[in-house]
Amino acid sequence: MEQEVVGATPTSCTKKMNKKVSKPSVDLPGGFIDRKEKELVIRDFLIKQIKEVMTKYGFEFLETPSFEYTESLGKFLPDKDRPSDGVFSFDDGKKWLSLRYDLTAPLARFTAKNFDNLPRPFKRYQLGTVWRNEKPGPGRFREFLQFDADYVGTNNLLSDAELCVLISEILEKCGLANNEFNIKISNRKLSKGLMEELNIKDENQQAISLRAIDKLDRVGIDGVKLLLGQGRKDKSGDFTEGAKLEEKQIDKIIEFLNSKGLDQLEKIRCKNKLFEEGINELKQIVKNFELFNFKNFKIDPAVVRGLEYYTGPIFEAELTFKVKNEKGIDIEFGSIGGGGRYDDLVKRFKNQDCPATGISIGLDRLLYALTQKKIFNFSQKNPVLICVLDEKYMNYYFKILNLLRSNNINSEIYSGSSNFKAQLKYADKRNCKYVIICGDDEVSKEMVTLKNLEIGSKVSEEIKSREDWTQSKDVQKTFPLSDLAKEIKK
Amino acid sequence: MEQEVVGATPTSCTKKMNKKVSKPSVDLPGGFIDRKEKELVIRDFLIKQIKEVMTKYGFEFLETPSFEYTESLGKFLPDKDRPSDGVFSFDDGKKWLSLRYDLTAPLARFTAKNFDNLPRPFKRYQLGTVWRNEKPGPGRFREFLQFDADYVGTNNLLSDAELCVLISEILEKCGLANNEFNIKISNRKLSKGLMEELNIKDENQQAISLRAIDKLDRVGIDGVKLLLGQGRKDKSGDFTEGAKLEEKQIDKIIEFLNSKGLDQLEKIRCKNKLFEEGINELKQIVKNFELFNFKNFKIDPAVVRGLEYYTGPIFEAELTFKVKNEKGIDIEFGSIGGGGRYDDLVKRFKNQDCPATGISIGLDRLLYALTQKKIFNFSQKNPVLICVLDEKYMNYYFKILNLLRSNNINSEIYSGSSNFKAQLKYADKRNCKYVIICGDDEVSKEMVTLKNLEIGSKVSEEIKSREDWTQSKDVQKTFPLSDLAKEIKK
Repeated sequence: MEQEVVGATPTSCTKKMNKKVSKPSVDLPGGFIDRKEKELVIRDFLIKQIKEVMTKYGFEFLETPSFEYTESLGKFLPDKDRPSDGVFSFDDGKKWLSLRYDLTAPLARFTAKNFDNLPRPFKRYQLGTVWRNEKPGPGRFREFLQFDADYVGTNNLLSDAELCVLISEILEKCGLANNEFNIKISNRKLSKGLMEELNIKDENQQAISLRAIDKLDRVGIDGVKLLLGQGRKDKSGDFTEGAKLEEKQIDKIIEFLNSKGLDQLEKIRCKNKLFEEGINELKQIVKNFELFNFKNFKIDPAVVRGLEYYTGPIFEAELTFKVKNEKGIDIEFGSIGGGGRYDDLVKRFKNQDCPATGISIGLDRLLYALTQKKIFNFSQKNPVLICVLDEKYMNYYFKILNLLRSNNINSEIYSGSSNFKAQLKYADKRNCKYVIICGDDEVSKEMVTLKNLEIGSKVSEEIKSREDWTQSKDVQKTFPLSDLAKEIKK
Repeated sequence: MEQEVVGATPTSCTKKMNKKVSKPSVDLPGGFIDRKEKELVIRDFLIKQIKEVMTKYGFEFLETPSFEYTESLGKFLPDKDRPSDGVFSFDDGKKWLSLRYDLTAPLARFTAKNFDNLPRPFKRYQLGTVWRNEKPGPGRFREFLQFDADYVGTNNLLSDAELCVLISEILEKCGLANNEFNIKISNRKLSKGLMEELNIKDENQQAISLRAIDKLDRVGIDGVKLLLGQGRKDKSGDFTEGAKLEEKQIDKIIEFLNSKGLDQLEKIRCKNKLFEEGINELKQIVKNFELFNFKNFKIDPAVVRGLEYYTGPIFEAELTFKVKNEKGIDIEFGSIGGGGRYDDLVKRFKNQDCPATGISIGLDRLLYALTQKKIFNFSQKNPVLICVLDEKYMNYYFKILNLLRSNNINSEIYSGSSNFKAQLKYADKRNCKYVIICGDDEVSKEMVTLKNLEIGSKVSEEIKSREDWTQSKDVQKTFPLSDLAKEIKK
């Protein structure tokens, strides 16, 4: 590091860089965060549950890379007005590369590439980071971890049902009670058929209408009405252009949205063929749920799912308990993911019918909600700290270290260069339960002094020297080195 | 998916896109690959070992995001002539973002950001993908998984020694014998001091000389001589410009490179202060290794490590057994990673001394080498397939499925739409050990027929119908449903 260089000047770009030498920022770009041990350990636990259930249900583990050719991923994200269409793309000389924005588009590419060698149906699960180039804002991340399960190569609606059952079992294994979540289902053919029936042919009107339906949770029925009509002004004064539908059309869509359950949907009496297909598929899925003895679902026509590739049944997993947002205010947490049928996605690559269906859950969001419920009580595995009172006893300290580690006890010798008091502060900061203190007395008699910081934490602030420590007999004891592992393990 | 759109046109770029509608590519961009279950399951096993050892040694788990501000990462990669300096960078409006090329630069940023709240030393481990925008080629990946352990905030050389011991224990836990790897150590101060002593002041000459030393493994002593001199033409005819040193200088560097061990290094009699510091630090590390009773190392001045931020001791972990490359030819596998001291990296962000040292191992490379040794024999956990002989027995099939899954037996009902023969082919392709076949007889008597495909695989090609299957009694048997779980578990 002979010289300080600020910023990079990628050869493909012409942006002028500031040549002044200054300190680089310690901040992260908006939408990215650091994650610490406590969160990661719980995440590892969730991942273990996910993998076990996926395997039990017969899904194969796959990992596609983070980058794909931009053309292979296609453009299926909602809200096309985001930077670079919501995708991180890079000029690779001959072609453009993009970071995946989901795990479904890469799966379609993988399936098309390996079409003849895969079992059909191909059941795969994947766990991985996806990137969205959103406008950064509070709680809006630009990278997140998700896990997906998909069935490729079958139009059997057993698979759609099983995906919902699978997610349900995963959520239970992660610690949620049956009444803390449910799976909402609908069908893209319903909204599409309804629009056909209502003679809404303009693609832009269709897209705006779908987005309006999707916003029901946030803006309520009246808000949706405005968005289907001339448009809506939000609290900040921003105006969103509406779909400009006629009143009769709007009324019918609102009737549709208010239909909870199959009976009510049938009462709409939409004689459109697509709509009827949608109803029949939902009926079949409900029948399949009965086979699984699965009851934790509801039919909700307001479920839309943002991605454009869905063609049939769609699902959404929602949490039904309240959590606190960053400001400490109770909010409905809502959706943690969902999915649906995308029968045409593989066909993009290959002139071959390959119906498929999948579901995808945001692991970071799930983790956030779960930790708010505080169901986790992982015992801290912080190391036992062996203090260095005198360099000349280093051999003895290492004897202790090797003993502890060979007994699989997390442990370390203090390896900074500060005095005893600072070492105890270090142990405090690490949340070490135990420190081991050995000076002349202990070493000469092959003994150790073990101090329990958990008990001793209340007085730690007042204590200034080793002599003081030894006063409080309830927090520390001295015994033969040979008893150490036994003592700590109990 | 109403219309096919080829390629994306990120707003920040002006490259012209082909507007012709054609199928997108099923291929991956060079340097990226798909990974399948067999590899991923072994990788999970390795990751588990890594995390356990890291925790045992008292390292905290951290995860920084994939993107950082380009200026925060700095420019420390070797071979500056690669596209975008070897980094994937992205115009984010006001500033440039880059995907991390290692886990060390982000750690320095994290430490600077959280300086006052972290214990010191801060011991952290991380596991994550890094990206290098290399020219793609066989075996050259542009994303790979690595794991790192670092000590930030201490100049105590105990930490450098412990990192080598830690990696050694991890490699053993992953299945390597003590004689299948070793840790090579050196010190940047040696080469730097030697160059000072030899009056090589030109930074470019210094950099070319270091790169030449780094290539010893590939080009041999004679190759290094050429690279230190006028330059070297490789087999393909490409000419690499040399450092253009004088013969005396070259001879001294070669003498240095040939010095194995501390005694020989001291015999070089380089009286430079930096060089002597380097020697003393190595002596201290060797002393510390003795405390750990660690012997599996060697001192090797040819160890350079590519990244520019190293300031002191450097380490390299190498595998000493042969593996086959993609063409099936035996090759020395060599380095799987390394690290060293980078005492100035945090100072880039903050006017504060913060010495640090770390080590980093390429998990994909380790996995590749390990699987070549075939030490892994994970029992396949492929699902039991319940065949669908008749839709009217669906309730019975689900009774079996629920029984199996509640006994934690991986299992599935065939959910495609093909006939029995195709279902057996599917089971073959999935490597299912068992299929369950239930028709009129079984259902009416509450029995199941269990077929062992492992035993039956030899004859499977010739068999055309269910009637044929029942002929071979050694591969299948029929028994009460209530015995099923017990039968499969044995």
